[in-house]
Amino acid sequence: MIETKGYAVHEAGIDFSPFDFERRDVGPHDILIDILYAGICHSDIHQALNEWKDSMPTNYPLVPGHEIVGRVAKVGDQVTKFKVGDIAGIGCFIDSCRECPNCESGQQQFCLKQAAFTYNGTEMDRVTKTYGGYSNNYVIDENYALKVKADGDLAGVAPLLCAGITTYSPLKRFKVGPGQKVGIVGLGGLGHMGVKIAKAMGAEVTIFSTSPSKEADAKALGADHFVVSKDPTNFAPLTGTFNMILDTVSADHDVNPYLNLLGVGGAMVVVGVPPSPNQIHSLSLIFGNKTLSGSLIGGIPETQEMLDFCAAHNIKSDVEVISPDRIPEAYDRTIKADVRYRFVIDMRAA
Amino acid sequence: MIETKGYAVHEAGIDFSPFDFERRDVGPHDILIDILYAGICHSDIHQALNEWKDSMPTNYPLVPGHEIVGRVAKVGDQVTKFKVGDIAGIGCFIDSCRECPNCESGQQQFCLKQAAFTYNGTEMDRVTKTYGGYSNNYVIDENYALKVKADGDLAGVAPLLCAGITTYSPLKRFKVGPGQKVGIVGLGGLGHMGVKIAKAMGAEVTIFSTSPSKEADAKALGADHFVVSKDPTNFAPLTGTFNMILDTVSADHDVNPYLNLLGVGGAMVVVGVPPSPNQIHSLSLIFGNKTLSGSLIGGIPETQEMLDFCAAHNIKSDVEVISPDRIPEAYDRTIKADVRYRFVIDMRAA
Repeated sequence: MIETKGYAVHEAGIDFSPFDFERRDVGPHDILIDILYAGICHSDIHQALNEWKDSMPTNYPLVPGHEIVGRVAKVGDQVTKFKVGDIAGIGCFIDSCRECPNCESGQQQFCLKQAAFTYNGTEMDRVTKTYGGYSNNYVIDENYALKVKADGDLAGVAPLLCAGITTYSPLKRFKVGPGQKVGIVGLGGLGHMGVKIAKAMGAEVTIFSTSPSKEADAKALGADHFVVSKDPTNFAPLTGTFNMILDTVSADHDVNPYLNLLGVGGAMVVVGVPPSPNQIHSLSLIFGNKTLSGSLIGGIPETQEMLDFCAAHNIKSDVEVISPDRIPEAYDRTIKADVRYRFVIDMRAA
Repeated sequence: MIETKGYAVHEAGIDFSPFDFERRDVGPHDILIDILYAGICHSDIHQALNEWKDSMPTNYPLVPGHEIVGRVAKVGDQVTKFKVGDIAGIGCFIDSCRECPNCESGQQQFCLKQAAFTYNGTEMDRVTKTYGGYSNNYVIDENYALKVKADGDLAGVAPLLCAGITTYSPLKRFKVGPGQKVGIVGLGGLGHMGVKIAKAMGAEVTIFSTSPSKEADAKALGADHFVVSKDPTNFAPLTGTFNMILDTVSADHDVNPYLNLLGVGGAMVVVGVPPSPNQIHSLSLIFGNKTLSGSLIGGIPETQEMLDFCAAHNIKSDVEVISPDRIPEAYDRTIKADVRYRFVIDMRAA
């Protein structure tokens, strides 16, 4: 077994402390990754606080982290995709059944037997508990690791493994490109990736935010327009003008004013999970052949495609790098949306 | 002016009586159609009863009818698409602005200046009132009339102009084809067209109906499977198995059980307008990258494509042909869903 140093919470809360555990030895198809950086995703916070106890209860001790970048330290004797010294990434899952229709079509996130999540889950044996990237290494089958182009600052690459693919996948699915108008609702960890990717795809991008103070930041990120969403009078002139709207907000809000902004055949895609449902009247979709859709991360092939796209367009996440002892502070500030736009833990210090 | 004999209601109700009015003379781009058949769409009933008074109040006297098939009796001197003796169809609109982006892309039903509806509307001059197909003729610009292949029984072609395009358009947009599983919710005027068209596109089709008594009919129409939707235990084994579900029901009902039946990337499309909204939780769309969409009839190019598709596959509506004096009886029976599946008025007797 391989000794691993991580950071865990042992009960609902944010009181992280060092936690030693073991990972499996490197099998023939495995690689051992020495973790360099792990992003802090809002999901980590929900899990640490056991806020999803009804659907995905937290099994403590919890070592979160599914936005992982590291250096390959060892490879199994059957490994062909990686060699020692390569940079590799790990996202939200580390294995799946590999034989259901969804796995076969490369959409392992929807594995019919349920994918093995990177933390707070189990391996496909349904016994071995998974611990995430707030740790100094990970052992993973090479087919579930991603190749990362190893240049420049790697801290900004880590959040691509969740925030990046979460926004890339729906923008790609709805064929965002030049000549199109795209709205991004919410300017946080997801939204700031959405604007960068949509711009790189060639779209004209509008950020909708409740915070007027974010206008300068939105423009600096490349947004063409900024709309304060709290003021309904801002919406009327935009009626029917958007091809696609990507909604990244996880707080309760009404999606209907945004449906009104879609043009004929337009699509709104939600990637956040507000606590309450929305009331959708059929007429809101029928007039204009409009679509309301959802999107959940992406499969391995599309995640690799996203990393390659981001490398080609020099897209990284804007991050604030912290040492592991500052995780609780980072959680507090993330909850208050006081980060532009992602905390990343430097695990080299672990 | 051209003398026209029609059937109108003069106040909210179904008390139709003969009503003489005038249509414009045949202009250079117009054709005069002697109407053979006019289908009775449920919209006609809503309008006769002024049930949409908040959004589309009825302007009496009302001559309904937007599922029209007839024979060309006269053509203007600039007309190129039709000649005297041709069979022509008219659907839900008879003109539009012709210059907005939606008109230019052939989606005239979403004309930004609002299309001129076939009845209970006005011409694009916004003055001249329109009267529908419960009449013996119509004068229309050739660009807004459809070409109908003139063989066999034409009564079953009339409902294609609304019920046909309403179901064809979303099935086409979501690329229904061989190897796909398609659900049709509701077996009425729209649903029975949906099953015929989806089968012709090559899909495996399941009808969902509240009426167990419709099973034999569903199979006779070509459906592969029949599910009684009132019994929730029928749904569990079908979880995640549909590529596309077309919901034709206009009564209040919960769409969420159907969203559960969609596979990854699946789409549910509503074409009926229930009075109340549905409660849609983001998670219902996010898990499985699912889509809820709407669809409204179709533009002129797609309506022509649908007529050609139906002619090539020998698809017509199942109809009960009545004389104009039986319109009130037909309305009563349509409200009670006592028709398989569309009443069509024989206007040759007008």
